[in-house]
Amino acid sequence: MKSVKVNSSATVANIVCGFDILGFALNCPCDELTVEVSEEPGVQIINEDDFDLPTEAEKNVSGAALLALLEEATDIKGLKLTSKKNIMPGSGIGSSAASAAGVVVAANHLLGNRFTKQDLVRFAMNGEKVACGVKHADNIAPCIYGGVTLIRSVFPLDIISIDAPPLHVTVVHPQIEVRTSDARQILKQQVLLKDAIKQWGNIAGLVAGFINHDYDLIGRSLEDVIIEPVRSILIPGFDEIKKASKEAGALGGGISGSGPSIFMLSKDAATAFAVEAAMKSIYDKMGVAYHTHVTTINKEGVKIV
Amino acid sequence: MKSVKVNSSATVANIVCGFDILGFALNCPCDELTVEVSEEPGVQIINEDDFDLPTEAEKNVSGAALLALLEEATDIKGLKLTSKKNIMPGSGIGSSAASAAGVVVAANHLLGNRFTKQDLVRFAMNGEKVACGVKHADNIAPCIYGGVTLIRSVFPLDIISIDAPPLHVTVVHPQIEVRTSDARQILKQQVLLKDAIKQWGNIAGLVAGFINHDYDLIGRSLEDVIIEPVRSILIPGFDEIKKASKEAGALGGGISGSGPSIFMLSKDAATAFAVEAAMKSIYDKMGVAYHTHVTTINKEGVKIV
Repeated sequence: MKSVKVNSSATVANIVCGFDILGFALNCPCDELTVEVSEEPGVQIINEDDFDLPTEAEKNVSGAALLALLEEATDIKGLKLTSKKNIMPGSGIGSSAASAAGVVVAANHLLGNRFTKQDLVRFAMNGEKVACGVKHADNIAPCIYGGVTLIRSVFPLDIISIDAPPLHVTVVHPQIEVRTSDARQILKQQVLLKDAIKQWGNIAGLVAGFINHDYDLIGRSLEDVIIEPVRSILIPGFDEIKKASKEAGALGGGISGSGPSIFMLSKDAATAFAVEAAMKSIYDKMGVAYHTHVTTINKEGVKIV
Repeated sequence: MKSVKVNSSATVANIVCGFDILGFALNCPCDELTVEVSEEPGVQIINEDDFDLPTEAEKNVSGAALLALLEEATDIKGLKLTSKKNIMPGSGIGSSAASAAGVVVAANHLLGNRFTKQDLVRFAMNGEKVACGVKHADNIAPCIYGGVTLIRSVFPLDIISIDAPPLHVTVVHPQIEVRTSDARQILKQQVLLKDAIKQWGNIAGLVAGFINHDYDLIGRSLEDVIIEPVRSILIPGFDEIKKASKEAGALGGGISGSGPSIFMLSKDAATAFAVEAAMKSIYDKMGVAYHTHVTTINKEGVKIV
């Protein structure tokens, strides 16, 4: 095998009450990434999109992930990446994770799948370090494992796939910039114990709701009393979008990752499209530019094309 | 039917990382409670044990629970309770909950099961208010529902039964007093966000481990970084008991309720007895008097005899 192409999907991290621990993968949008073995040492990067991302491997999210993999694949001289990103950087739906996770899955396939999924998460987290300064697995893990993914612990890595019923996802991406570092900084370092208890009651309910395919319980548990009240201030129209989405039938939802995208979960496709219409109507009235996606949860993770 | 007798079991609340939200019922010890319809208004109480509990209904845990039920069973004049408690008050294994939950289940059976389990929890919480000043469902809910029980919310009540694999429980009750109110007061009102995140990662793992019957995940998730470090100071030999129990093969465990009892979960009976021996050896060396129980999770809740 000389070259492997993958579709690496967008992901939603910080599922409402599951801040820093729960995420899921989407079926669209996807980045298209092709990795080839190369005789040239290191990682060469060709970008086939208009995002003007760095081509120097150490400064590129995919490059840093592949360099980490190459350190442990000592029989391989170099890798060449051709990257066509469709997930807009800074959207809050795991654009950097799709790049970092996609390329290591592709490279692993090229090398006869010698690494475990957990190894791949470890490599890909180097890409997140380039993107936001912190090795986190919030988006990487669901991107690689697919489905709903619990990151119980990052050091040491402990990733658990959580079964879930069919869910339809509506995402709206208002065209504003929320920097991950800013979204981190406005969080309080201390929280009230009573709020933390409420939050972990909801997380327990959400996990039980997912595994038991209990849509009502999922809906009741999609409540965040700690992060959302602080971060939603950075997102125009957040409260209105949430209210209108629930009125349109959404089970619930919240900020995707650190924003600015907002996601909503629905039981069926018709509701997910009604939620999209409700979101559009709010942002049209407010004069906020946006993109929307209506999709489902991607259960497979990164797809070899 | 003139009289109903029940066995109402001990319960473990605050399952390690599941402070205030997760508990389970034990198969022993049990209180023996008999409720009869009476022509005398209100609730009469006869105690057949040596705990010297109040017989005035308003000041008695069972009495307060039955009075709450009587308010909604307007066709019934009065009830008579004969109570033989085997669960020592103040042990941390839900003695007051067994009294309050047991009598309302018995009364409901006597009255043709007209109330839902949720109604019964609501009535029984009045008993907890007498016992510790707060209406909480931490022990009441698992006592009535049986098995592992999630209390996602108290107001409004949202109780979810969590499936779990067979588990053997070892409980050691050092003969010291820890008052629930003291155990509450020493908790900090604020916690670090990073600790809260670790805690809710563990809760998510614990719930997934229970439902998926994944003993390893249950073991890894039985970690409490918020409550245990503070409260365990009140319990002599806590760290030694925990260490010795894990060395004897326990999956993990911690403080039962607000203490002083300590519980440990094991995969099989032999391990649970080895854990008991390890616990005994620690307290024997320290010269601490104690009781132990080796039992399993009670999946049925309060049992009609």
